[in-house]
Amino acid sequence: MSEHPRRIVVLGSTGSIGEQTLEMVRAHPDRLMVTGLAAGRNSQRLAEQAAEFGVDLVALADETSAERFDETVTKPLVGPDGICELVESAEADLVVCAISGVAGLRPLMVALEAGIDCALANKEPLVSAGRIVTETARKSGARLLPIDSEISAIFQCLRGEDPSEVEKILLTASGGPFSGLSAEELQEVTADRALDHPTWQMGRKVTIDSATLANKGFEVFEVHWMFGVDVRNIEVVVHHQSIIHSMVQFQDGSVIAQMGLPDMRVAIQFAMLYPERVSNDLPRMDLAEIGKLTFARPDTERFPCLRLAFSAARAGRSYPAVLNAADEVAVEAFLADEIPFMRIPELIERALEEHQAFETHTLADVEQADAWAREYVRGLL
Amino acid sequence: MSEHPRRIVVLGSTGSIGEQTLEMVRAHPDRLMVTGLAAGRNSQRLAEQAAEFGVDLVALADETSAERFDETVTKPLVGPDGICELVESAEADLVVCAISGVAGLRPLMVALEAGIDCALANKEPLVSAGRIVTETARKSGARLLPIDSEISAIFQCLRGEDPSEVEKILLTASGGPFSGLSAEELQEVTADRALDHPTWQMGRKVTIDSATLANKGFEVFEVHWMFGVDVRNIEVVVHHQSIIHSMVQFQDGSVIAQMGLPDMRVAIQFAMLYPERVSNDLPRMDLAEIGKLTFARPDTERFPCLRLAFSAARAGRSYPAVLNAADEVAVEAFLADEIPFMRIPELIERALEEHQAFETHTLADVEQADAWAREYVRGLL
Repeated sequence: MSEHPRRIVVLGSTGSIGEQTLEMVRAHPDRLMVTGLAAGRNSQRLAEQAAEFGVDLVALADETSAERFDETVTKPLVGPDGICELVESAEADLVVCAISGVAGLRPLMVALEAGIDCALANKEPLVSAGRIVTETARKSGARLLPIDSEISAIFQCLRGEDPSEVEKILLTASGGPFSGLSAEELQEVTADRALDHPTWQMGRKVTIDSATLANKGFEVFEVHWMFGVDVRNIEVVVHHQSIIHSMVQFQDGSVIAQMGLPDMRVAIQFAMLYPERVSNDLPRMDLAEIGKLTFARPDTERFPCLRLAFSAARAGRSYPAVLNAADEVAVEAFLADEIPFMRIPELIERALEEHQAFETHTLADVEQADAWAREYVRGLL
Repeated sequence: MSEHPRRIVVLGSTGSIGEQTLEMVRAHPDRLMVTGLAAGRNSQRLAEQAAEFGVDLVALADETSAERFDETVTKPLVGPDGICELVESAEADLVVCAISGVAGLRPLMVALEAGIDCALANKEPLVSAGRIVTETARKSGARLLPIDSEISAIFQCLRGEDPSEVEKILLTASGGPFSGLSAEELQEVTADRALDHPTWQMGRKVTIDSATLANKGFEVFEVHWMFGVDVRNIEVVVHHQSIIHSMVQFQDGSVIAQMGLPDMRVAIQFAMLYPERVSNDLPRMDLAEIGKLTFARPDTERFPCLRLAFSAARAGRSYPAVLNAADEVAVEAFLADEIPFMRIPELIERALEEHQAFETHTLADVEQADAWAREYVRGLL
């Protein structure tokens, strides 16, 4: 155990991952402390969190939200620049990146450039800019720690193992709330219904991505970039119960799996207290009680987003940034009841087809591809 | 990879584990070579093996078998002393201990005392003399590597982990061929039927032990002694498909599992080539094809051997040696159709109840308890 509590900055503190992160800080007050908090628009909740954890450094996404913030607590920083400023000045040992979408990319880069370890719940930066993000971390020596349960599982399975002996990554997928629906039924799906995920409690964007399997596709990028695994050696297995969080198959035929109840807090704690496994009171898995685990191949006919993600991952260049941006716009439109569910993969596929790909050496390149895709997909709505 | 092939001695080379061990040597001729082979009574097969692997040092269990051995191949050593002499003179880097029963204890001790690493398929030495075996290994610096699939699984799950962070070992059990039978049906079970194990191909003794769950009880001792885990922190989970070979639950709530098809060769290779995971052509697990994994609590009413093993493990002293010897005699009698199936646990329980326990500091103490139990149980037949 280190002598001083680890100083944590939480980006996206009022979201689902953010709240669970703070819950685990609360559970380990001798080991963890909060030195910065950033949220989107939930000024009231952010003020409560800042007061509870005695945090002076906070940021909100826009001016309107900042004006609603209780200034007797502290004065918030504002906007994307404010969030980056917060990361730079919080003297953090670890930044928990739980901002949804590609908006999380810039503050992540600021942290990595400063050599600060980052715990990543936010997948989109590795989808859009995987090479840039991982190279930045490598250069500065900052560690990228996964918070996503599947990616944390793989990270845990690789402990003490030789990465060159990995044969295949078996990424499990709950299959989302619609795995049992026919192609026709999927046409009728509403946003409300999609938001009712069977096993994981998550934010709105990631819940829809989970229903389309785009989320699983994004995890293919995470696996590829975080662990240097060739996309062809990543296989998705549908596993409704989300008890096996993912597996690593080695070249001797042995498979190591990480398991547990579907509870993000295990992965969050593991990332925050890495490399220690600290005792906690979280509920334990009871396999005899659970009784049965099932497995199936994913159906990429009904869930084309997974196939599209694999295609974009193999194609590389600016395609992943387009995949990601097209998905963000399409999901927003679906959540606003502007398009039906099956239009999401259609829009992404159109964008990938129409895109004139280019190399993405810099964040500006990524942002250019991102901007093109957003404009293109909005034009189709 | 080391420069010279690892020199392997196989004790019990004509048995199921022995043959599979030689199969893996055949698969890795650049890394493994055989320098000694010991068998029970199968003189012909031993001579074939010695000729194939160019081995001069062989041993057989008794004079009659030795006389039947083809002396144009080599001259065999004879009896328990011959097997020990073979271990001492074979200049082995690793002894694969696959002799069934407590008969494997002495050659194992000879190897460990000489500081030679041992790959252990044979459970009984750790049941009868766990403390003596593990202390001998610790003193000489010899490594004990598990070959048993469940124990190898736990060994693999602990790689790169801190043993002090282990909360519980979840030992899986196929449940044996009779897991679905009622108490009444179990009374009628024959040896032939018991020998038809659903998933694992094994020797006769271990197959019956698997049917009574005594085998699972013996693994409790293996886990306890090999990994220093308190018996109270070992839990058995019935898992018919034998795909999850066992699990380790850590104090943060995370569970690491090792999985694969039920195929001893993975564990055998892992022990022989440890710490490397060398590529092979063994069939791979396909969870989508398997479809379903089931789990249940063990029924110690119908399978009292498991309960008896836990009792003996907790009680310690000479009880484990009595458990083991009583089981060996009872299983022999069952295989000879002298007693019904449910008489096996009855005999073991009687022996444990009647035994006047004492401390087992030396092998002589263990042998005394063993001899008492054999005589006592034979008297009940």
